[in-house]
Amino acid sequence: MRIVSLNDVERVPVRMAGASGVERQLPIGAADGTPSHSVRVFTLAPGGHTPWHEHPWEHLNYAIAGEGEIVAADGTAHPFAAGDFALVPPGEKHQYRNTSRRRPFLLLCAVPKEHE
Amino acid sequence: MRIVSLNDVERVPVRMAGASGVERQLPIGAADGTPSHSVRVFTLAPGGHTPWHEHPWEHLNYAIAGEGEIVAADGTAHPFAAGDFALVPPGEKHQYRNTSRRRPFLLLCAVPKEHE
Repeated sequence: MRIVSLNDVERVPVRMAGASGVERQLPIGAADGTPSHSVRVFTLAPGGHTPWHEHPWEHLNYAIAGEGEIVAADGTAHPFAAGDFALVPPGEKHQYRNTSRRRPFLLLCAVPKEHE
Repeated sequence: MRIVSLNDVERVPVRMAGASGVERQLPIGAADGTPSHSVRVFTLAPGGHTPWHEHPWEHLNYAIAGEGEIVAADGTAHPFAAGDFALVPPGEKHQYRNTSRRRPFLLLCAVPKEHE
């Protein structure tokens, strides 16, 4: 088995178009032999956000720390903060935003390993 | 999309043989339309533990709160506490234990939805 502390996982800036103030970690990935899904953690700086985009695979989310929101396909922003879980189905447009002015927003996001 | 707070998810005692002081929640499951994997949360009371067992599917774990350990196939206990991630591969024997005398140990555990 693999056990790793989030603090010991490399944190890499996300350069994707439409992303701002986002860093990514990969505590469980294809290189660790995961059979199906990988687990990423995104850290959004205050005011940071991911792209508002869609793709044909799901997201399984847990909000680890901080407070934010998920923008749905119709543009509605749903509160999403520490202790909340979310399922974003395949093909549904979505965006994660940090709504705090002071604290980072940490988000667990599991996806099929092909898209880690 | 589905967003739910862990506090709003029903908590059910685990009656499985070999489990002690364990409750289960299912924030993301087959009934929510998850395509592949479900997300459970186990709360282990102080001194509580899951069975020491194996099965032909993986666990993707994140320790949400508290402190515990994972017992591996060879009987070695590996520390596993808040902020840690674990991958237990298919077929590898494992057990989760709460090592605190005072606090609950909360554990996220994603599995194929057929085994939620």
